[in-house]
Amino acid sequence: MQKSKQHRKRVLRSLGTAIRNRRVDQYLSQQELGIKADLHRTHITDIEGGLRNISFLTLLRIANGLDCTLTELMSDAESLDGFDKGVAS
Amino acid sequence: MQKSKQHRKRVLRSLGTAIRNRRVDQYLSQQELGIKADLHRTHITDIEGGLRNISFLTLLRIANGLDCTLTELMSDAESLDGFDKGVAS
Repeated sequence: MQKSKQHRKRVLRSLGTAIRNRRVDQYLSQQELGIKADLHRTHITDIEGGLRNISFLTLLRIANGLDCTLTELMSDAESLDGFDKGVAS
Repeated sequence: MQKSKQHRKRVLRSLGTAIRNRRVDQYLSQQELGIKADLHRTHITDIEGGLRNISFLTLLRIANGLDCTLTELMSDAESLDGFDKGVAS
């Protein structure tokens, strides 16, 4: 159980890092990405920190805000070290 | 507002279709995928029908259950006709 929680945390952190990397590459602040994706800045902060398990549609809004596809964003996240396929239930 | 709701529906349906296509290609029933992903069969039914905006971690469990990466699954979904980048808030 504890292990599975650790997996989830790592995976969410990888997603957050992938989002943050793309945002920083585009010289966007969290506030600016928030405006583009219609999300509050603190929501972006939480997502980038891996603190939220966001929904598919929110993920899509972020990809749109970053001018990338979901395929590109997932590829970034899955290529990060922390990404762990084995998320137990 | 109505238009944005339509967008969301189309995008969720594309995701559902991408999942269904991969499941059927592997001769898995919804029940079997449900067991592999630790989700109830009816949950799989709803997701494939585009009736649920699932979370990132649920999406990952489904990808694991389908033995594919999120990148592959998103690529499938984004290549479908119904997929519409422009999801308004």
